[in-house]
Amino acid sequence: MVDLTTMGQKAKQAAAQVAQLSTGDKNQALIAMAKLLRNRQDEILKANAVDLENAKAMPAKFVDRLKLTDQRIEDMAQGLEHVAQLNDPTAQYDRGWVTLDGLQIMQRRVPLGVIGIIFEARPNVSVDATALTFKSGNVVILRGGKEAIQTNECLVNLLRKALANQQLPMDAVQLITDTSHDSANALMQLNDYLDVLIPRGGQGLIQRVVKTASVPVIETGAGNCHIYLDRHADFEMAKAIVVNAKVQRPSVCNAAEKLLIHQEVATKILPEIAQALVDHGVELRGDERARQIVPLMKPATVEDWDTEYNDLIMAVKVVDSLDEAIAHINRHSTHHSEAIITPELGRGQVFQRRVDSACVYVNASTRFTDGGQFGFGAEIGISTQKLHARGPMGLGQLTTIKYEITGNGQIRK
Amino acid sequence: MVDLTTMGQKAKQAAAQVAQLSTGDKNQALIAMAKLLRNRQDEILKANAVDLENAKAMPAKFVDRLKLTDQRIEDMAQGLEHVAQLNDPTAQYDRGWVTLDGLQIMQRRVPLGVIGIIFEARPNVSVDATALTFKSGNVVILRGGKEAIQTNECLVNLLRKALANQQLPMDAVQLITDTSHDSANALMQLNDYLDVLIPRGGQGLIQRVVKTASVPVIETGAGNCHIYLDRHADFEMAKAIVVNAKVQRPSVCNAAEKLLIHQEVATKILPEIAQALVDHGVELRGDERARQIVPLMKPATVEDWDTEYNDLIMAVKVVDSLDEAIAHINRHSTHHSEAIITPELGRGQVFQRRVDSACVYVNASTRFTDGGQFGFGAEIGISTQKLHARGPMGLGQLTTIKYEITGNGQIRK
Repeated sequence: MVDLTTMGQKAKQAAAQVAQLSTGDKNQALIAMAKLLRNRQDEILKANAVDLENAKAMPAKFVDRLKLTDQRIEDMAQGLEHVAQLNDPTAQYDRGWVTLDGLQIMQRRVPLGVIGIIFEARPNVSVDATALTFKSGNVVILRGGKEAIQTNECLVNLLRKALANQQLPMDAVQLITDTSHDSANALMQLNDYLDVLIPRGGQGLIQRVVKTASVPVIETGAGNCHIYLDRHADFEMAKAIVVNAKVQRPSVCNAAEKLLIHQEVATKILPEIAQALVDHGVELRGDERARQIVPLMKPATVEDWDTEYNDLIMAVKVVDSLDEAIAHINRHSTHHSEAIITPELGRGQVFQRRVDSACVYVNASTRFTDGGQFGFGAEIGISTQKLHARGPMGLGQLTTIKYEITGNGQIRK
Repeated sequence: MVDLTTMGQKAKQAAAQVAQLSTGDKNQALIAMAKLLRNRQDEILKANAVDLENAKAMPAKFVDRLKLTDQRIEDMAQGLEHVAQLNDPTAQYDRGWVTLDGLQIMQRRVPLGVIGIIFEARPNVSVDATALTFKSGNVVILRGGKEAIQTNECLVNLLRKALANQQLPMDAVQLITDTSHDSANALMQLNDYLDVLIPRGGQGLIQRVVKTASVPVIETGAGNCHIYLDRHADFEMAKAIVVNAKVQRPSVCNAAEKLLIHQEVATKILPEIAQALVDHGVELRGDERARQIVPLMKPATVEDWDTEYNDLIMAVKVVDSLDEAIAHINRHSTHHSEAIITPELGRGQVFQRRVDSACVYVNASTRFTDGGQFGFGAEIGISTQKLHARGPMGLGQLTTIKYEITGNGQIRK
């Protein structure tokens, strides 16, 4: 099996160096990486062709995730250049103060250190994760799916070459080429070297990491998001937001999966909203009361309320009250993003206060939960846990703090 | 075995209520708890006497941790009242901004939710942890050591009674009365209900929790802290800080365990510092060069460099350079607190930048790493991990964030 201890040692050594690089040096390295990816496009496509050949028998959706094109390589290069332009979070002090004893305490942003990323078929994760971890002063150990191994190896070799060309430590980016379950499990137990592990992929992967890992994990990406239409919801706004949140990009985690609707308005507005959704190809599944209003819906099962479809499917439930909507959401949500549509200030406040999710919207689409939309510039994922980071994770969320304390001889009395 | 699922459900239900309480209501409850502890002092001492009787055969140090007195009960009561006076972190917005689309995003501090605390012999943890978790809007599930079970039961019953008297949910504080290993292990796997688990106790406990838990854990309290005397260190300052950091309270995690000293000054200043430490009853263990200068030191073994003594013992090493000191610290430290004594600005900066610990001091004692000293008012522990919280954890570190987002019909293009 792969020697993760050696990789961990190399990563730790590189981390000490990368943490001390100036922002300018890091930016130059990112730009050099982008250039090298463009120059070696043919090499990348050739490696990708091998993976695609091996994946011939896989479903079309899977092959599409795996496949690189000129455009996708250009996108990766532009991603690196874009991250070079973002602010360096580790160039910042959050705050500073002087204690009663005259100690000066400065709270500085510093890199986390060594970040593990476990991901599945998309090879662009190799490049995107490297850009974000490196810019924030971290080093990364990547462990991608076996189906993308040739592409990942080629990409990571180029990224490392770009670092070496700049006289920077190439071990700032390492790829685990052993794609067995054993190597993934070993990475999850690499407590002496890994500061955090971020799984990027489907629920199966994420849950396996959460259950297996002894290193700290950040859970990302599960989005069973709700839209709740309250008793006085503006009809046109409600329709526009529901359709947008469901159909604009149904495969992503901030797409809405559930529609709750107050019983006072259900009869009036549900038929037309349902029709608009059906016109966009959405399959609707309703509870009993929703189906009485819109009989074309399939009956929703108990499982539906806890399911993230990532597809053109939406389950609909009529509720008696704001309280019932909030209770349903807190019980079934993955705590990612939820929205209420209401013109009433007080009811919007209650919803925002009591719904226990990372992002709670009043009168807007859940699709805005995204590092780019939030103004963070880029994101490594959406955290659905409460510890360390919650919601979109940009560069800042890949850092921690350190207290730099300066005195002139203070001792504790 | 104990039914942790039911406790988890009750905790989650209480958490939803406690999160919505006003700061005033929480403060009143804390004051009521303090009052009840004072009024029922006899009852508490009686329960404690049973635990003490059962612990007769244990070492004196252990019995001392377990023992309550009038004064210790008064201290717990005052602790509750003190926390009532601290700022409520959940009454705060960190920041707010408006996106390009005109969405208003407010980043609010919110409670973590359900916090598990596993601790050992000290029954005051029941009360202290309740004060901090409750004030920050959380609920707590406590699991103390079996030796303190009668005392913990009595204390927790009183805290719950005080809550009930205020018409507040008593399940904001629950104690696991089954003190078997099984109950601890089950708590570590209670992913559906627990937002974070904080072990409080010795290294054995903390490492078992880190290795076993699938819920998010915050590692606290391991402190193999270093003081490094640089080439031009002020002699009097160095002596005062080393003695203070070692002997002022040797049993705590921010006490210094190791002394590194630059070879240029070792011959000159080590003998007198060593003598001062010996005069305070410190046992010294030195590397070869240190023992050439101060022959009374025992030889340090390889294990010494990684050992937290929590006792009047200190290991001493002579180093050739600032680089060697930093490398030694980064290799052997628990990343808690380290100090350099130097009059040279540049060398102090290098030390603060490159030493990878939560608190890095220039010219001050490591003993200041403490929530009270930092001005946080109180602390639940010192985090030695990088995720979520690093260094002293006050009320603020028991919270997470939520994005409250308000629009007027925005959809994603």
